Amino acid sequence: MKLLRVNMSLLSVASEPVPPVYKHLGGRGLIAKLLLEEIPPTCEPLGPHNKLIFAPGLLGGAGVTTAGRLSVGAKSPLTKGVKEANAGGTAGDTLPRLGIKAIVVENQPESDNFYLLRVKQDSAELFEANELRGLGIYATSQQLQEKFGSDCTIIMIGQAGEQLLTGAGIANTGEGSQRANFAARGGLGAVMGSKGLKAIVIDKAPAGSFSYADGEFFRRASKHFAQEILEDPKLGPKGGTHTYGTSAITGAVNEMGSLPTRNFSAGSFEGSTTLRGEQLREKILARGGEIGKRCMPGCVIACRNNYVDETGEPIVATVQYETIALVGSNLGLDDLDDVARLNYMCNDFGLDTIETGAALGLAIEAGFAQYGDFDSIAALLKQVGEGTALGKVIGSGAVVTGRVLGIQRVPAALGQAMPGYDPRSLKGNGVTYATSPQGADHTAGNAFGARNQVNPLGIEGQKELSLKLQLISVMLDNTGLCLFARPPVISDPQLMVDMLNGIHGWGWTPEDLDQSTREALKTELEFNRRAGITAADYRIPEYMRREPLAPHNAVFDVPDSELDSIFDTL
Amino acid sequence: MKLLRVNMSLLSVASEPVPPVYKHLGGRGLIAKLLLEEIPPTCEPLGPHNKLIFAPGLLGGAGVTTAGRLSVGAKSPLTKGVKEANAGGTAGDTLPRLGIKAIVVENQPESDNFYLLRVKQDSAELFEANELRGLGIYATSQQLQEKFGSDCTIIMIGQAGEQLLTGAGIANTGEGSQRANFAARGGLGAVMGSKGLKAIVIDKAPAGSFSYADGEFFRRASKHFAQEILEDPKLGPKGGTHTYGTSAITGAVNEMGSLPTRNFSAGSFEGSTTLRGEQLREKILARGGEIGKRCMPGCVIACRNNYVDETGEPIVATVQYETIALVGSNLGLDDLDDVARLNYMCNDFGLDTIETGAALGLAIEAGFAQYGDFDSIAALLKQVGEGTALGKVIGSGAVVTGRVLGIQRVPAALGQAMPGYDPRSLKGNGVTYATSPQGADHTAGNAFGARNQVNPLGIEGQKELSLKLQLISVMLDNTGLCLFARPPVISDPQLMVDMLNGIHGWGWTPEDLDQSTREALKTELEFNRRAGITAADYRIPEYMRREPLAPHNAVFDVPDSELDSIFDTL
Repeated sequence: MKLLRVNMSLLSVASEPVPPVYKHLGGRGLIAKLLLEEIPPTCEPLGPHNKLIFAPGLLGGAGVTTAGRLSVGAKSPLTKGVKEANAGGTAGDTLPRLGIKAIVVENQPESDNFYLLRVKQDSAELFEANELRGLGIYATSQQLQEKFGSDCTIIMIGQAGEQLLTGAGIANTGEGSQRANFAARGGLGAVMGSKGLKAIVIDKAPAGSFSYADGEFFRRASKHFAQEILEDPKLGPKGGTHTYGTSAITGAVNEMGSLPTRNFSAGSFEGSTTLRGEQLREKILARGGEIGKRCMPGCVIACRNNYVDETGEPIVATVQYETIALVGSNLGLDDLDDVARLNYMCNDFGLDTIETGAALGLAIEAGFAQYGDFDSIAALLKQVGEGTALGKVIGSGAVVTGRVLGIQRVPAALGQAMPGYDPRSLKGNGVTYATSPQGADHTAGNAFGARNQVNPLGIEGQKELSLKLQLISVMLDNTGLCLFARPPVISDPQLMVDMLNGIHGWGWTPEDLDQSTREALKTELEFNRRAGITAADYRIPEYMRREPLAPHNAVFDVPDSELDSIFDTL
Repeated sequence: MKLLRVNMSLLSVASEPVPPVYKHLGGRGLIAKLLLEEIPPTCEPLGPHNKLIFAPGLLGGAGVTTAGRLSVGAKSPLTKGVKEANAGGTAGDTLPRLGIKAIVVENQPESDNFYLLRVKQDSAELFEANELRGLGIYATSQQLQEKFGSDCTIIMIGQAGEQLLTGAGIANTGEGSQRANFAARGGLGAVMGSKGLKAIVIDKAPAGSFSYADGEFFRRASKHFAQEILEDPKLGPKGGTHTYGTSAITGAVNEMGSLPTRNFSAGSFEGSTTLRGEQLREKILARGGEIGKRCMPGCVIACRNNYVDETGEPIVATVQYETIALVGSNLGLDDLDDVARLNYMCNDFGLDTIETGAALGLAIEAGFAQYGDFDSIAALLKQVGEGTALGKVIGSGAVVTGRVLGIQRVPAALGQAMPGYDPRSLKGNGVTYATSPQGADHTAGNAFGARNQVNPLGIEGQKELSLKLQLISVMLDNTGLCLFARPPVISDPQLMVDMLNGIHGWGWTPEDLDQSTREALKTELEFNRRAGITAADYRIPEYMRREPLAPHNAVFDVPDSELDSIFDTL
């Protein structure tokens, strides 16, 4: 395995053997370690000292179901701390098959040119690519696949990343015509833009190009793992996640009073019925769209959909829960067609739908559009692509939008917008938002699934729950596994260890895996500490401690002392 | 002496005796202590827990020349730390004469109404004042003085503060028709806006309403103090500060290569000749304007001017050096008429000219206007008053403007724009910008005056110089003295002590004064520490360590270790 070092100042690419310090690390954990070892933690996120890292997980490329996610990371221009965001698509499986453990993009070009990184089986090279400037995600990927072959993976930014907007994400393509699998969070698209890198084109790996330490042993564990997922009542062929996609939970989040509604001013939405997974499925199937698609090769959960309009024409793939919450109920919109159209626009500009949905909610509060009025909202969002001043404000995310437009009720922690769970009535998520080195993030330790074990409205047990979930998230993000793979990972930790040993031959025990997970989280916390981030930066916004949230009239009341002590046992 | 507590939630005003802990404090030091004692340091600056404080200095009201400055403070929405900004005008003398040591504005109204605080000799009351909404500084003060009498002092915000823009300052009126003495920095106007307070109207104090512990002793010291200023070669009747105003230094700053030019991309400006104090004086006098006016009653320096146009019509009072640098050379403008017109607009909207000039420079870099083109720049600035999205961005100051518009070369430290001295060629100021709890500020420890003692381009001695100057600044800001009063304060510290003892009867020694000064700076540093501010927040921007500044090709190269150890001996 090798690291590709891409120097955007010299416009050169070097390949090096993986330094020993990074050997046992992958995905999120590798990113954290690389950032801690190699960049000044106080550096400016969009300056030359930051590094942008693409790192598949430790199970990537081996053919483990749901384990092909690509981690992308850097010091975040949004949180000012360590950042990892991951996405489905084909990159996370392809890179390890090409023998690439990570691509590390360093420095910045002298000029304002944009470049393309072309990665082939045995070489990698940078090319000037100004002709792609100003193109959205869909046109960029289409042009590049037409040129380099439809089986290439394209990793890219849209207009938002080009403009260095801190709400920008990074997309990568998937099987078939999939164009928009997003490593959405933390403003990583702006970091890619600041490197002058518009896109990466990666050749498909030749068949049989992955080598196992013990292929037989691996396949046994891997098959068992897939079986456990298939048999899981939620994940398997009849499970909600497969049947309805991530939107399966819309109804439940609404019922627990945690659904972001009109800029997080209520926790349940009178129009939520038409945003539920059942409606989504029905509508899509009746119109000739598709349900139960996969975002990664070999995934047996297949929560993806192809959302189409009344005439059967595609609007966007895929409409997911967080988007439904943030650009649906959070903007007072109850029509999935509207959500799908805003989703498409966000995707095309290369914007995180969570950050952007939260920013749009704030712009509505400031009077620039109206809740429930698709046209006024779409007109606002359109400005991001056009590069108007207001578009740039919204594209910069929730905190900047609140500050510029004079709105104090900003649903964010550590500079990053909250996802689709109001922390006042799902307090475990509040603890995660206010303590995770990743900031407010639904994949960093999501307590929704544990709502029957720990009372989401109570204080007791939230700290312990959040820590447990944060560690599981790190483990998943280190290996490239999807968050939905949580059940078998929890119930049978030996399986993970067996799969890792089958691939890498490390002879790990479950304790080694646990140790490595804890180390990764500690590395992230240490990076943020050195970056100058303190408890003050992590806090839940004041209004959420003051303003009760309907329907439970809950405030966020987990004491700061609980938040500050969460990692004492790490 | 009493404190006025203004509760904007209950809409009530209470008067209380000064608590013992605040007894020996005034101005900046009182603000720091009040903030540390009474607000949660991590509170949101524009939320209900912040307090806005108006505090005259310890010499205020007694008739000491140059000592009538009003300190205004709060947790800053710009720096997120402790903030004090002070201004001339009549408030700093009037409040102590009414027996008021400080006005502390607490909480926030439930409604979005704006209010007026009316302070009379023996009472204070809040009134709804929505009719003032949307008015600039000039119309607000004119309407209020028409209503309440032309000898009232008006403290107020313009449209910028109403919109909660973090580039907003607070103005107060002075003698005659003076309308715009600004406590400009740190976004305090936004804090006033967040309290729903549009203006404060203060009655003139009756003659003879100030009492001295030892009037005779005081008058001797005070007379001596005035004499020393009058005899100072720079400050006296023939001195540059009186003759040319603060713009006396334009030429020297340009010659030392520290004059901010086109968004701090050069340190000398080819058009600086027409921005010099000599030109300013000549132009104003030839047109029938005024030079040598005073901003505070009894000031013997009198550095103020009334800038008029070719027909003798007033444009603005007063054009000062920092404004000339930030909206003149920094925007490529070499015509003082243009500077004066932009100055008037900033004043009327209630904007800090330093913060706004820096923001406009960034907007020009982003292509929204052109260097040297008054019309395009004025059109941008006009948008702040109009409340457009771009106007709100610019009104939010340099850091937000840079972030939203995707410009990385942002001349700011601790979130606040740098004043008119590029720190690469005046490194003592760089040390102050990067260590003062007030952020980048020309009044917090300005090394320009010491350029002949410590080589401004060298590293050696800068740390010690900055600390010394920072302490003198604190002493001046505690007492309400103007920065120009520095020479006699340094040469004869006993004079300060005598004046204080003559007023308050404390029997202080110079050591007591020094101790109190150091305590105030420590209190500010402690507030910022508790607010979660770390060394990472204080740093000079990376590009200033990388990009050499013409004409000396200097970079800012004072090591971080020097910056981090500056207060070790405090």
